[in-house]
Amino acid sequence: MSSTNPRDWLLLERIVRFGDTDAAGVIHFYHLLRWSHEAWEESLQLYGLKAIDIFPSLVDIKSFIPIALPIVHCEADFFSPIRIEDHLEIELSPLRLDAGCFQVKYVFKKGENMVAHSLIRHRAIHSELRHPCDLPKDIDRWLEVSS
Amino acid sequence: MSSTNPRDWLLLERIVRFGDTDAAGVIHFYHLLRWSHEAWEESLQLYGLKAIDIFPSLVDIKSFIPIALPIVHCEADFFSPIRIEDHLEIELSPLRLDAGCFQVKYVFKKGENMVAHSLIRHRAIHSELRHPCDLPKDIDRWLEVSS
Amino acid sequence: MSSTNPRDWLLLERIVRFGDTDAAGVIHFYHLLRWSHEAWEESLQLYGLKAIDIFPSLVDIKSFIPIALPIVHCEADFFSPIRIEDHLEIELSPLRLDAGCFQVKYVFKKGENMVAHSLIRHRAIHSELRHPCDLPKDIDRWLEVSS
Amino acid sequence: MSSTNPRDWLLLERIVRFGDTDAAGVIHFYHLLRWSHEAWEESLQLYGLKAIDIFPSLVDIKSFIPIALPIVHCEADFFSPIRIEDHLEIELSPLRLDAGCFQVKYVFKKGENMVAHSLIRHRAIHSELRHPCDLPKDIDRWLEVSS
Repeated sequence: MSSTNPRDWLLLERIVRFGDTDAAGVIHFYHLLRWSHEAWEESLQLYGLKAIDIFPSLVDIKSFIPIALPIVHCEADFFSPIRIEDHLEIELSPLRLDAGCFQVKYVFKKGENMVAHSLIRHRAIHSELRHPCDLPKDIDRWLEVSS
Repeated sequence: MSSTNPRDWLLLERIVRFGDTDAAGVIHFYHLLRWSHEAWEESLQLYGLKAIDIFPSLVDIKSFIPIALPIVHCEADFFSPIRIEDHLEIELSPLRLDAGCFQVKYVFKKGENMVAHSLIRHRAIHSELRHPCDLPKDIDRWLEVSS
Repeated sequence: MSSTNPRDWLLLERIVRFGDTDAAGVIHFYHLLRWSHEAWEESLQLYGLKAIDIFPSLVDIKSFIPIALPIVHCEADFFSPIRIEDHLEIELSPLRLDAGCFQVKYVFKKGENMVAHSLIRHRAIHSELRHPCDLPKDIDRWLEVSS
Repeated sequence: MSSTNPRDWLLLERIVRFGDTDAAGVIHFYHLLRWSHEAWEESLQLYGLKAIDIFPSLVDIKSFIPIALPIVHCEADFFSPIRIEDHLEIELSPLRLDAGCFQVKYVFKKGENMVAHSLIRHRAIHSELRHPCDLPKDIDRWLEVSS
């Protein structure tokens, strides 16, 4: 673990880029959910976990990951237009729901203003058998120290 | 209007492509919301509306569109893995919520199985003044004949 | 094979959607390469091949695909702005370069006007050993009947 | 200008995320061009320019930008697989081609290894009249100090 202060892996930043916008001149909505997932990955990494131990990949079959964490639900609410080069602060609030399920809330702020928030819920499944199972220990620990 | 049977613009199809997947071998979640929005655009078009009259664009400032329809909420639930080349049926259920707000529910089926559903809610705003206003008449009519 | 006329799998169509544009009001450039790849997948499918036999996926490890076709080069040229709801015709010109390499040229037309073209080059590699190998027979056949 | 050493705005970094990969377990090709464009935007910003002065947007019609910089050509070559959580170094080499045209080369390194490179060429056009014009002065200055 590279830090013991949860703020170090739960308070992130993002700058909006041109390709995130659409012809209306503000962000095209689903990019907010992409940013949320990327913020989660960054959080795990800053906490000290390795993506290769969490995310399955065909490339390294030898290091086969027995537990996948597919998304079962996501949502987002938009309060103010988000524009190119906006500096967004992202605050993550992870929550363990049961032994095999957790969610992360993401609050997006521009200065003092909350401009959007989102939520992504994951459920652990056994990669091969495709049935529900317990969360990986690493994720459990990240959830515990993050609450 | 090119048809009078709502099924013609509310029952659509989509085939999953390689770039929609991630290293876990199933679709990366937010693409479902992209497909939902694209299905909405296809529905308006099949009903007989022109995108250039609905979606703002800097290119044609002369045909300036006074009403924008930004997304204020979206959500999705995932029930079964969606894979490359899956043929999905998408069923749209539009609903007018009040004079300036509507939503569309999207149900994704693979054969008889519902594999996911989503919901996108839009609110009409005056493009320049950025305050709430009534829905454009074209959208109102599409909502009426679609319910 | 579902047809014997190459035009049936080499002449495709695409309608531009709102999320493909950026704040300048025309398509954001890299989507053209996404459309090209998706047109290639559609072509293989219309010719009669199954994506599950061509594209590797972690989900079906039993049906492990020994040959991957990673992209080694891509390029695109843009001649005219491409806007929302433009109906594009896409013409594919596949070409076998050597025993383990092929490319596809994609010409995008709006009516009589060529608005853009692109090129994607693939090289066959052995999935596990990661060294060059011959093209899969199915792809070889598609290349032969498409030239 | 926030720095006078070109390395500060021409040597950037990027970490690969899960959504950048496809079912083959490596990045899906066109994301490299997205990263290239985002690196260009980051470079301009680190040099001291504001996106709102460079990139057109419908939202701020009052601050209408008379010159757009559409992409006329892009290309990429891929040498080694790029995977989730790879730390990439991106080196930008901008070049003025003539009074109205410039390009940027992007070299992507993983440690000492060059894993890919790309090139994006832009041409200045008058936003309303849509005919070629000279580059904006800010871009000209960034090109001069970056060569």
